[in-house]
Amino acid sequence: MKIYLNGKYVTDHQAALEYNDRGFLLSDGIFETMRSYEGQIFGFEDHYERFNQSAHYLGIPLTPTFHEFKEIIDQLLKENELDKKDASFRVTLTRGTGPRGLIPPENVNPTLMMTAFPFESTIPKPARVMISSIRRNEFSPLSNIKSLCYLDNVIARRDANKKGLDDCIFLNTKGNVACATAANIFMVVDKGIVTPKIEEGILPGITRKMIINLCKSNNISIFEETITENELLRAKEIFFTNRLIEIQPVVQINSILINEGEVGEMVLWLQKFYQKLHVSL
Amino acid sequence: MKIYLNGKYVTDHQAALEYNDRGFLLSDGIFETMRSYEGQIFGFEDHYERFNQSAHYLGIPLTPTFHEFKEIIDQLLKENELDKKDASFRVTLTRGTGPRGLIPPENVNPTLMMTAFPFESTIPKPARVMISSIRRNEFSPLSNIKSLCYLDNVIARRDANKKGLDDCIFLNTKGNVACATAANIFMVVDKGIVTPKIEEGILPGITRKMIINLCKSNNISIFEETITENELLRAKEIFFTNRLIEIQPVVQINSILINEGEVGEMVLWLQKFYQKLHVSL
Repeated sequence: MKIYLNGKYVTDHQAALEYNDRGFLLSDGIFETMRSYEGQIFGFEDHYERFNQSAHYLGIPLTPTFHEFKEIIDQLLKENELDKKDASFRVTLTRGTGPRGLIPPENVNPTLMMTAFPFESTIPKPARVMISSIRRNEFSPLSNIKSLCYLDNVIARRDANKKGLDDCIFLNTKGNVACATAANIFMVVDKGIVTPKIEEGILPGITRKMIINLCKSNNISIFEETITENELLRAKEIFFTNRLIEIQPVVQINSILINEGEVGEMVLWLQKFYQKLHVSL
Repeated sequence: MKIYLNGKYVTDHQAALEYNDRGFLLSDGIFETMRSYEGQIFGFEDHYERFNQSAHYLGIPLTPTFHEFKEIIDQLLKENELDKKDASFRVTLTRGTGPRGLIPPENVNPTLMMTAFPFESTIPKPARVMISSIRRNEFSPLSNIKSLCYLDNVIARRDANKKGLDDCIFLNTKGNVACATAANIFMVVDKGIVTPKIEEGILPGITRKMIINLCKSNNISIFEETITENELLRAKEIFFTNRLIEIQPVVQINSILINEGEVGEMVLWLQKFYQKLHVSL
C-alpha cells in the first residue's frame, strides 16, 4: 500500500510520523473522507472547500492549491492501482511538529497525509441505534469541523456496539438532535424531510448537502431546523448520511421501532436517486 | 534527546510513529504531564492511578505495572541526563494502529511514548484572562480525562493570546465555571477557598488534589462546589493550578480586575507551602 506523506509517495512501512506531531499530541488537525468511482473523485470541490475553510479557521497552512490537491489524489490512486476501481480515501492535515505545550510554533510546517483503500459500494444494512449519554457540544467551533478530536465519537460507538447496536445518536447540550457518531441525520415527517440546522452543533456534511439539493431539485420539501428528541422518535422514517454509508435507514432507536422496523419508501427512493449521482460521473 | 517508545529508548530522530496510529487519526489516547525534582517524580502514585483509570475506561491496555512504569521514567531521565536535575515529562498512551474507521482492532497493540525535558521552576506571572466563548462539555466523559482530544483548548488559548491575554476560562454548557485551557481554577471568597466540583466537567487535577489536601491539613476551609460566572468575578483572589505552573494568580478577567490587579495573600501563602512539598521529596 502506498501513502502520500508530505510530498512523497511511500509504502505503509516507510510512512513515519514524527513523535512530536501536534496531530498526535493534541489532535491539532483536520481530515476528510472521500470516495472515487473509477478514478473520479465524488464531490471533490465541496470536500476541498470545507477542508480549506477548516484549515484556514485553525490557521494551518494548506499548501496545495485545488488543482495540486487533486493531482496528488489522482497520483495516489494510480500508485495504489485504484484509478480504475472504486476507492475511499482519507486526507489528514495537522499543524506539524511543535515544542511542548499548547502554543503552536511560529513557523508551522504542516503534515499532509493521504491514504487510499479499495471500496465496494454496498447498500448499508438498516441501523438499530440508541441515544447516547454523551452530548454534542454546540458551544465548540469544532462541532462544525471535521477535526482529529474524535474520541467522543469512538467511545459512543463502542458503547453502542457493546449493547449489540450499530450506532448511536448524539443530542446536543440543549437536548436537541444533532447527529450520529460519523453521520448526519434526517427524518421524514408529514411536511417533508427535516435535518438539524448547522447551529445545533453538527458537521456540514457533503452528503447532507447533496441530499438537500437532491430534494430541492425534485420538489421534495426539505427543512434545516431544530429537532427535539420527541419529534425524532415520532418520525415516519429516519436515515443517516455520510460519504461511505451514503444513505443508511434507521429502523430502531432505543426500544422504539421506526416505520415498524422496516426500511421506508423515501429512503429507498433517495438511495436510488443518489446512486445515479455517482454513476453519472 | 532520547525518547521512550514502545520498549525502546531512541533518539528523537529515530522515534517514528506509524501512519495509522489511532492517537494520530482519532485522538484515541491519553497523556499525563509530570515533574521530577533531582530525579524524584512528584506525585507519581496519583499520576499513575489517574492514567491507569483513564486507560481502563477507554479499554486501552496499560502494560507496564506501577513499578515497571516508574523504572521506565527513571531510565528515561538517566538517558537524558536529567536524573540529577529538575525535569518535566509527558507520557502518551494510544490505542495503537488500526484499520480505517472508528471501531478499534480486535487485538490492541498500544503505543506508549515518553518524552522528558529540562524544567526550571519559576514563579508564574500573574495571568490576565478572558471568558472563552467555547464551553467545556460536562456531558462528555472526556471532560474528566486527560485525553488527546485537546483541540478546543488549543483554539481557546490561541484566541486569548491573539487578544494579548495569557489564557482563558471555560464555562461549562450550563454556564458554570469549569477550568482554564490546561489548568484547574480556584477562587478565594469570604468563607474560604472554592473550586468547581468534578461533575462540572473538569479534569481531576493532581495539583488540584494537592491544594485541597494542603488546605485541609492547614485548617483552611475548602469547598468543591458549583461556581457561577458572577461569583467568580466577585472573588477576592483567583488562581490556576497545574503540574507545570503549579499555582498561578489570575489578576484580570475580561475588563475586571481581581484583587485590584494584585497577587493576593492567599496565593502567596499557598505558593510558599506548595513549594515545601517538592523540596521535601
